[in-house]
This record gives sequence, C-alpha cells and structure tokens, in this order.
Amino acid sequence: MTIIPRDVISAADRLIGKAVVTPLLESPTLNERVRGRVLIKPEIFQLVGAFKFRGAYNRLSRLSDAERAHGVVAFSSGNHAQGVALAASMLGMPSLIVMPSDAPQVKVDATRAYGAEIRFYDRQRESREEIAAAIAKERGAIVVPAFDDPYIIAGQGTVGLEIAQQVRALGAELELCIGPVGGGGLMAGVGVSLRSRHPDIEIWGVEPEAYDDTRRSLEAGRRVSAPPAPRSLCDSLESPMPGEITFPILQENLTGVVTVSDAEVAEAMRFAFSTLKLVVEPGGSVGLAALLSGKTPLNGRTAVLILSGGNVDPGLFAKVINREI
Amino acid sequence: MTIIPRDVISAADRLIGKAVVTPLLESPTLNERVRGRVLIKPEIFQLVGAFKFRGAYNRLSRLSDAERAHGVVAFSSGNHAQGVALAASMLGMPSLIVMPSDAPQVKVDATRAYGAEIRFYDRQRESREEIAAAIAKERGAIVVPAFDDPYIIAGQGTVGLEIAQQVRALGAELELCIGPVGGGGLMAGVGVSLRSRHPDIEIWGVEPEAYDDTRRSLEAGRRVSAPPAPRSLCDSLESPMPGEITFPILQENLTGVVTVSDAEVAEAMRFAFSTLKLVVEPGGSVGLAALLSGKTPLNGRTAVLILSGGNVDPGLFAKVINREI
Repeated sequence: MTIIPRDVISAADRLIGKAVVTPLLESPTLNERVRGRVLIKPEIFQLVGAFKFRGAYNRLSRLSDAERAHGVVAFSSGNHAQGVALAASMLGMPSLIVMPSDAPQVKVDATRAYGAEIRFYDRQRESREEIAAAIAKERGAIVVPAFDDPYIIAGQGTVGLEIAQQVRALGAELELCIGPVGGGGLMAGVGVSLRSRHPDIEIWGVEPEAYDDTRRSLEAGRRVSAPPAPRSLCDSLESPMPGEITFPILQENLTGVVTVSDAEVAEAMRFAFSTLKLVVEPGGSVGLAALLSGKTPLNGRTAVLILSGGNVDPGLFAKVINREI
Repeated sequence: MTIIPRDVISAADRLIGKAVVTPLLESPTLNERVRGRVLIKPEIFQLVGAFKFRGAYNRLSRLSDAERAHGVVAFSSGNHAQGVALAASMLGMPSLIVMPSDAPQVKVDATRAYGAEIRFYDRQRESREEIAAAIAKERGAIVVPAFDDPYIIAGQGTVGLEIAQQVRALGAELELCIGPVGGGGLMAGVGVSLRSRHPDIEIWGVEPEAYDDTRRSLEAGRRVSAPPAPRSLCDSLESPMPGEITFPILQENLTGVVTVSDAEVAEAMRFAFSTLKLVVEPGGSVGLAALLSGKTPLNGRTAVLILSGGNVDPGLFAKVINREI
C-alpha cells in the first residue's frame, strides 16, 4: 500500500476552505546565519497549531455516514489528538482520544476544548493500542492511526503540495526540504508530493538523537527500533518505529536522516523566539536545529524548512527561553 | 509640515530589497473569537523585530555623503535604536544611541550587535535630548528623531501601503485598522497611506491606559501630556506627548484612540503565544488587546491588526506566559 501524487491532490481538494494555507516566511537574519535561503513553512499556524489537522480531516472526511455515527477513536501524545478532535467536531461526529497521563497540559486542554472525550492511560503499564481497540470495538468506532494510513499520509502531503505551489509563485529554485520525522507521516506525504514537482530535491528528515529509529531503519534497509531511551524534549517525535506504510515511502524519498540533541533543539527554540518571533514546540524545531547546527549545510542553496507544530506548555517554553533547559 | 501619500511611495522605493515585506496572516480561531475577520500585519518579522527599521532607513538614506561621514545620533528606549543602528550600518555610517540605563537587555544587546555605540543615561536625572544634542554638536552628527520627522513618518507609512496592496491582492474589503500609538509615527504614516486607498476606513489607535496622551490630545484639540504615571508594561509606548508633526496627521486620520490595561496587554501576549504562535512585545500587543477586550468591536467586519514589534526580554516573556504578570 502506498500513495501517489494524485492522492495528495485529492486530499488538498478536501481541505479547501477547511485547513489554513500556511504562508512561506523568510528571515534575512536566518538566511545570513545559515548561508543560504530558507523558506519557512510555519505549520504552527495550522488549525490546532500543527500539520496534524490535515491528515486527520482528510481521513475522517472519507468515512461513510454510517461510520460517522459511531465516531472515531485515536491515541496520541498530543497534536494528532487535537487534529482528530477538531476534524471530528467539524464533521459532526463524536471522538474519543486515548492520551498518556503525562501529556503536555496544553495539548490535553486543547483536545478537550475541540470537543473530544479523553481517556488517560499510563505509559509504563498500559497499552494505548489495546485500550483504543477495546473502546472502538465496544462502540463500533473507527480507530484513526497517527501516521500509518494512506489518507493520513496524503493529508500531510498537502504541506508539500502547497510548498511546491508557493515556491513556484515566488520564482525560487528549491533544492532542499528539511522537516521532522516521528512516525514518518509528514515526511512521507511531503516526499511524494514535493518530489513529483522537484525530482532532484534533497529531502532531509530530522529525528531526536535518542529516537533515531528511522535513521537506523534506513541504514538497516528494514524497520527497526532505537534502543530504549529516557524521554527527550521532543514529546511529539518519540515514535518506536517507522510505519509499515510510511517506511517504504521514506526509503524512496528521503535523502537521509540527521539527528539533533535536546540542547540543539532548545537552542533552535530560542532562535525562533528571539529572531523569528515564532513559537515552535520542541518536536517542531528539529529541522531548525539541524540547520543551525550545520548538520544540513546549505552552501548558498535554497531550502524549505517545515516548522511542524507550536503546541508547547508555557512552563516548558519559559524554561527554555530562560536557558534553564 | 506634513506628509502626503507620494512621500510614502517614495519611502517604499527606498526600502525595496532592504526591508522585509511582511505578510498578512489570518487565524480562524482569532476571527471566531472576535466575530470578524482579522488580517494580521506582523511587523515583528521586520528587520530588527519592529517596524522602526522602515522609518530609520528612509531617513538615513536621505543624508548627503558629507552628512553620512559624521554619523547619526538617536535616543530611544529600544526599537528605534535598533532601527537606526542597523540602517546606519547598512548605509555605512557610524551611529551612537542614547539609551535609558533600564532599557530591556534584549534591546541593548541587539543595538550593540547592529554596530552602534551606546551611551546610557538615567531616566530620572538626565535629559536624553540634551545628551544627544551635545554629542551631535561635538561630532557634527545628525540627530534622528524617533517619530517627529517627515521621512520617519513616511517610512512607517509603508506599512499601510503594503497593507493596501496585500488587501487588494486578497480581494478583501478593509473596514478597520488597529495599531499602537506611542509618539504616533506609525499610525500617522499608516493613516496617510491607508486612507488614501481606503477613504472610509476606521483607523483606531491604541494606547496604554496610563500613557493616553494622544487620546487626551485628540479630545483637547491640542497636544497635551498625560499625568505622570508609574512605568507600564509597554516600554515602547511611554511617550510624553504626540509629536508636532504627527499630531495634526493623527487628528485628520484617526477615528479615535482606545486604551488598554497592563492586564489586557498580558492577556493579549498570552493569546499570541498560545493561539497565534507569535512572539509579540507588550507595546506591540495593544491592538490585539483592544480587539480581544472588545474595545474595537468588529461586528462581522474586516480589520487589519498591526503587531508592531516582538522584542521582549525572555525573562519578562516567561513571566507573562506563566501568568506571573
């Protein structure tokens, strides 16, 4: 099972008038700093504060009336939860989200505000997959996966389609794309849509150092996990393994994966705060961290940088800008 | 002495390839919250993080070669200082900035980084005007005022010119403009440029409650000061009185002035952080505070909201988002 560029165009049709067409921003200071041209795609301005709304809405909009009546169930540490909750509410269906009890408060509150019912689970002792499956069975509801679903991937791919259209309108020559990899839904979708318009583009995925399952999997040529690791700053990128559907798409489209440390992520968040004037969550900042730390050198080239989400607890953000993290 | 729309067009010519053409952003969540359509003009993305660069560059670009050699002197609590420092450096001339010793550290550091020499003064005991005049005389340098200068006003007016062009490209019907008033340079310039394209537009200035000198002056029909007040959160809007040149332009173009409290400003900064994902300094947030507090009701209309600057000390920003202010 895979997706083709036409699936992304179909998703884009569904999202017209629903999702925000996020702009491309440019900062002369950032360009100078990284010696190249960076076109920033701020998915932090997307509904729910992250790209996740795109995939969730595309997926849910494909359900039949009968399926809609029973609602949807999802498990997520945050942004996918909000995306599903809002998409369900816009499409008039009930949603229940299974969230870890230690999820950032800002994401819990927002998910509830979008109209979802929440069921907490203990990361250490319970399986969110089992809980979600049991609830779905009981209610006859559909489980909406966070990334390993063709409609989800195609929805996230609309980020890449917009980039291609906006870059063309700018008359710019696009040579790189840099963005975060958790389960790989975003970069798989972007890979398909962006490479179809820019066949020779370099597409770099970025992972947290301790959660480099995609980097390891690409190296091994098959899906493998990273060794168990303590929590990282990037709560939204702590996926155990690339998806069955996302992995072959990533294999085909990614130029490579680089990894960044928590310290580099915090530095990127501070740069976004003080220079770009943007609020970016840790997981959303890994691409910027890769750029600023020189791991994806531009050498005068033009790159698009995806800032994938901006949902960060005020307390954590305060610590980061105060250099306590 | 006044300015006409052609002065703003001339300033825009000078700024081509120098200033950032800031985009118009839109947030469905903000639109819903204030029951109208808000087009956000984020001058936080401007060089130096505030609109001030526009006026400073326009002013300095008019100096003769002989004048440039002697450099420029300015006094400012912050953003104007940065604007002058960067513009001087881009035009290859020396600059000296007279700053209060309690200016936000982030603004002091940035001004120095842009290549300016800094002379601190004591807000309570010294006159910055006298210090600047003495240094200028000694060096044969030009004093660059923060707002009361036709070239400065015309430069800030390019914000309004861009808004008019961008609104036209969007095909939107613009009915209100809301932005901050300190000395009045920004809203005077915007008044001239925006009203020439939108004759019936409502233009609302916003001041901090305790620094409502422009509101009082408009009511009195002449320039008056507000009574002495303790410092407000909005360090960039604590001007004692509207300017000789800005005031008649404001009289002609402003529909009115509303005032906002520090608590409303802090709430607006938190909204910008959590919902818009934008970093806005207190003085830059007063327009958003007016909108959110219902003081400039939209009733379904379309407004442009100027977020004029984003230079805020991390420590202060952390306190605001942690609700300690």
